[in-house]
Amino acid sequence: MKPDEIEAKSFAIIDAEAGPHNFAPDAWKIVRRMIHTTADFEYMQMVKISTNAVAAGINAIRKGCTVITDTNMAKTGIRKDLLAGFGGRCECLMADPRVAEQAKQRGVTRARVAVETAAPMMKNGIYVVGNAPTALLHLLEMIKNKAADPALVVGLPVGFVNAAESKAALMETNVPYISNVGRKGGSTVAASVINALALIACERT
Amino acid sequence: MKPDEIEAKSFAIIDAEAGPHNFAPDAWKIVRRMIHTTADFEYMQMVKISTNAVAAGINAIRKGCTVITDTNMAKTGIRKDLLAGFGGRCECLMADPRVAEQAKQRGVTRARVAVETAAPMMKNGIYVVGNAPTALLHLLEMIKNKAADPALVVGLPVGFVNAAESKAALMETNVPYISNVGRKGGSTVAASVINALALIACERT
Repeated sequence: MKPDEIEAKSFAIIDAEAGPHNFAPDAWKIVRRMIHTTADFEYMQMVKISTNAVAAGINAIRKGCTVITDTNMAKTGIRKDLLAGFGGRCECLMADPRVAEQAKQRGVTRARVAVETAAPMMKNGIYVVGNAPTALLHLLEMIKNKAADPALVVGLPVGFVNAAESKAALMETNVPYISNVGRKGGSTVAASVINALALIACERT
Repeated sequence: MKPDEIEAKSFAIIDAEAGPHNFAPDAWKIVRRMIHTTADFEYMQMVKISTNAVAAGINAIRKGCTVITDTNMAKTGIRKDLLAGFGGRCECLMADPRVAEQAKQRGVTRARVAVETAAPMMKNGIYVVGNAPTALLHLLEMIKNKAADPALVVGLPVGFVNAAESKAALMETNVPYISNVGRKGGSTVAASVINALALIACERT
């Protein structure tokens, strides 16, 4: 089987096993791709998508926005070719030597400095957190202080310390978000959300 | 909290919630890191580690082996600094233009050509599958035909078409393996296994 055929068969299996659900068609394309990436049907219960978040993400991508990730793994997994088709790009500042240097000088985490450094790129862009609750929490603080203004936050940090809490805090804001309840998440599933949005954006072109 | 402190706290939470288990100390370090990466305790039941696979992996890393991955995401997540400390490195051929060209000419998948191209690097090395069942199935065929001879196979493809089947086939061989039963897996968890092995190798230095 070719990769396309494998994906189509996978989606058919997921549709069949998922059974009835209340996701709107575009939202289901996102959730289905998250399940495809993780083989974890629990995402059907865990995923939370704010009103208009899907439209905000599609519009941002169609306008050639910058997608900023908190991990190079998420950046690696994102279909940068699809973003580039709209004039967009993907950036991750975690491995930027200037970020590392500044974090060291200030005695704060690289995740924090990376979010601050990304603020100018964030306007009309999408911020993707696949790993660091610190990044998401600091982003929320910056949004509150009007220091950052992303079109969409994909908040999917994974782990046992502050991951669930940072996502709960995201869900209390007015910023458009795609996130999940609980500890699960990660770079592969975060990338899958952007890829699902980018593929929907391509269908509309 | 600093990243090290977050990790230590996360491991303490996992230890407490995991409860009693029968993993040997080194195997638990691997499984615990898989849980840390995924927040999925199901790995306690799913993971299968063949006799001597942990020792084979640690020895290979300590000898400066090449770690070959089937995805650039897994390569991105692997602590290449730790491998380099032993003279080792990490390679992924999926994005190699020669692999793409050959796959196109022969009408086969890139995953298949990437495995074949990696065979000469595989002696005493570790092959890591985090995504493509095709890669794992073709590797098993090559091992059977004595065309490949890795010291360890980390077989953790994820998905709905042949992922579980390819891992079941791996578990029927005599090659040292770290794998899991079922559909779950992926690049982040595959990288976490190599990082756990590399950290154990560092402790022994």
